[in-house]
Amino acid sequence: MAETVTSLDVQDLRFPTSEQLDGSDAMHPDPDYSAAYVVLRTDGGAEGHGFCFTLGRGNEVAAAAIAALRPYVIGRPAPRGAADLAALHRALTHDSQLRWLGPEKGVMHMAAGAVVNAAWDLAAVRAGLPVWEFLAALSPEELVSLVDFRYLTDALTPQEALALLRAAEPGRAARARALKATGYPAYTTSPGWLGYDDAKLVRLAQEAVTGGFEQIKLKIGEDLGDDLRRMRLAREAVGPGVRIALDANQRWDVGDALRRLAALAPYDPYWIEEPTSPDDILGHAAVRAGQPVKVATGEHVANRVVFKQLLQAGAVDFVQIDAARVAGVNENLAVLLLAAKFGVPVCPHAGGVGLCELVQHLAMFDYVAVSGSLEGRVIEYVDHLHEHFTHPAVVESGRYKAPTAPGFSARMHPESIAAHRYPDGPVWRSRLRGRS
Amino acid sequence: MAETVTSLDVQDLRFPTSEQLDGSDAMHPDPDYSAAYVVLRTDGGAEGHGFCFTLGRGNEVAAAAIAALRPYVIGRPAPRGAADLAALHRALTHDSQLRWLGPEKGVMHMAAGAVVNAAWDLAAVRAGLPVWEFLAALSPEELVSLVDFRYLTDALTPQEALALLRAAEPGRAARARALKATGYPAYTTSPGWLGYDDAKLVRLAQEAVTGGFEQIKLKIGEDLGDDLRRMRLAREAVGPGVRIALDANQRWDVGDALRRLAALAPYDPYWIEEPTSPDDILGHAAVRAGQPVKVATGEHVANRVVFKQLLQAGAVDFVQIDAARVAGVNENLAVLLLAAKFGVPVCPHAGGVGLCELVQHLAMFDYVAVSGSLEGRVIEYVDHLHEHFTHPAVVESGRYKAPTAPGFSARMHPESIAAHRYPDGPVWRSRLRGRS
Repeated sequence: MAETVTSLDVQDLRFPTSEQLDGSDAMHPDPDYSAAYVVLRTDGGAEGHGFCFTLGRGNEVAAAAIAALRPYVIGRPAPRGAADLAALHRALTHDSQLRWLGPEKGVMHMAAGAVVNAAWDLAAVRAGLPVWEFLAALSPEELVSLVDFRYLTDALTPQEALALLRAAEPGRAARARALKATGYPAYTTSPGWLGYDDAKLVRLAQEAVTGGFEQIKLKIGEDLGDDLRRMRLAREAVGPGVRIALDANQRWDVGDALRRLAALAPYDPYWIEEPTSPDDILGHAAVRAGQPVKVATGEHVANRVVFKQLLQAGAVDFVQIDAARVAGVNENLAVLLLAAKFGVPVCPHAGGVGLCELVQHLAMFDYVAVSGSLEGRVIEYVDHLHEHFTHPAVVESGRYKAPTAPGFSARMHPESIAAHRYPDGPVWRSRLRGRS
Repeated sequence: MAETVTSLDVQDLRFPTSEQLDGSDAMHPDPDYSAAYVVLRTDGGAEGHGFCFTLGRGNEVAAAAIAALRPYVIGRPAPRGAADLAALHRALTHDSQLRWLGPEKGVMHMAAGAVVNAAWDLAAVRAGLPVWEFLAALSPEELVSLVDFRYLTDALTPQEALALLRAAEPGRAARARALKATGYPAYTTSPGWLGYDDAKLVRLAQEAVTGGFEQIKLKIGEDLGDDLRRMRLAREAVGPGVRIALDANQRWDVGDALRRLAALAPYDPYWIEEPTSPDDILGHAAVRAGQPVKVATGEHVANRVVFKQLLQAGAVDFVQIDAARVAGVNENLAVLLLAAKFGVPVCPHAGGVGLCELVQHLAMFDYVAVSGSLEGRVIEYVDHLHEHFTHPAVVESGRYKAPTAPGFSARMHPESIAAHRYPDGPVWRSRLRGRS
């Protein structure tokens, strides 16, 4: 008997992270990391979990957007392989009325991503494989069939994508074994939140190096004097051999970025992340061309069309995919293929709640079956909120361990869900009483 | 006593336009034109009306996004002048948690636009002026203060904007008089919907010319043979002296666009609108460079940062602002200033429900106080759904008459609102019974 998707439930979950200034940066001083959390259920008893990540306010809008996708999911066959997952992705992103709300950007697109990712979780759980291995078991033809090439063919055709994937096929098994043995390199942002004082920055930077990380990241972008001091302290704390990446979180105009990066360059920053608007392809290209620090971006890039142009314009040294902003695994597969075509390494954005859990699968699949390389590649790691997941991401000695549990590592503990429901879970009932 | 905003109400209104294939194009075959309709009320009894325009499904998500903006509006002073309207626009677009849902794009940004526009309606009603005259009565300094220049300064600085506005100041009064006497040129899309048969196309095209229009527009983009035949029929119907614009509604990749436009060029199309993805700045530039038809875009451009790049890249011959996609009057003012700086004419997108009513104010203000020119400029006109507005847009002999009623022409009749509420208004109760 074929299994059918019978329900799509969505919940508004929020974590009061603003109380410790975890996650604070130049544009987001006090986020409450949140998830519009979706569960797909089937008549066979299987479940698929996924989510939109948000910063708190507006999480209910993401939940409403996910709920609007129910008619595209319920009654469909429970996804099993590439054909089902390709069809579902297209149904969710190409509805002729819903697309007016984007197209393919913002809340509606993030909601599609949450549902697509939940479907991948469901399919991988049914197959008994973690998503990275489930993906890496698909043929080049199946992988190409998952991608929506609309608007991409001036940069990447299906035939070119197929050739890339076939070229990477022979080494798949060896690379999967290597991943299982030694994991995937990580860097940590935990020391660098803008709201942390200097002592905490130095202590956490030293702990990161002791813990095996070879790269850390600092949030910057407000006061240049503060940025220079924090960069100097971090450099002194970690020594010359550890990479220090900087993240301006979209704080600057192009001229600001050029001036400030010239001042910071003597401390040898590894990359500057989001120097300006994530929509500003030409701005990123101007920043990359006008100063010596390498440029990274992507966590707020709305879709594959913008990634395509960042690559066409030579605007980035590193592509930072995010697992929960574009339309799920399928669209991130398009971005991985574009990056491979242009020879630009992918260094995923993570952190938030659950983003490390999801994106590790995509980076590991990229290594096994697309780029075939770890060179210049690291996955972000932030040590927050992992305890709420049934199969949390594990980083040891500065490397992500390859997940082994079936699925997308997206599932939260039922107790965490119950506690963090907004506004009626116990975590929020007490706080909202206090605030009113 | 200062007036205060005391409530923000939002309603899900839908019109069953798909039943006549009004509005049908290559990407949106059966839209039900809809509005997430917002009413601001004050303790002095004044009201401000505004809306997100959508195609039906998902209109409830836009309504949820508008509702999420209540805390940024309620309790504020009822907006009176530029300072209030600048502050409200910033509050709605720069919340550090909400911005994660965009930033500045998609549902959340459209919702901000609806509320900003409702605030402009409220301020103009209180001032006793239509919005175009209310805007044209502001000083260059006040106008500059309304604009968010973040991410624009590599293309347009506040000083440059001020100089543009000052240069246009001397002729304001004469141009306002001219507008009141003779109106603003329009073109019509009513003949060209993709779902109309050839006979209806020919009849409506001839009626348009008889009615005084010097430009019509055809929806194309599916089958090239159909497009060539429809273009030929339209050309035969209107003669060589009437401009025929084409609209592909994002249907093509770059290569498709180049091939198809080469085939259509012998019929002398005036412009090609949305040849590809609205996010594809470099794609539009390639289409413009690679074939002879002029390029127009903008109705789906998410924000001022993308408009900036379209101009920087030389990707467009015409900038098509939409009144209800970006963050309201303030952000459209930024786009008008950018277009003026680059010397590109603005030809607004309209149609849908209420878009003609809104955008006429922006085009007329542009003529009076920004570009100072009507050359190469036309406002789209579609003859649908105007009867639901208390002060509908009026087009006579191919020209928009200058609105005289105070406000933004955004207000619908109470009976229209009651009838079209989804799903509980009488228009929908009967239809949904029939469909289930």
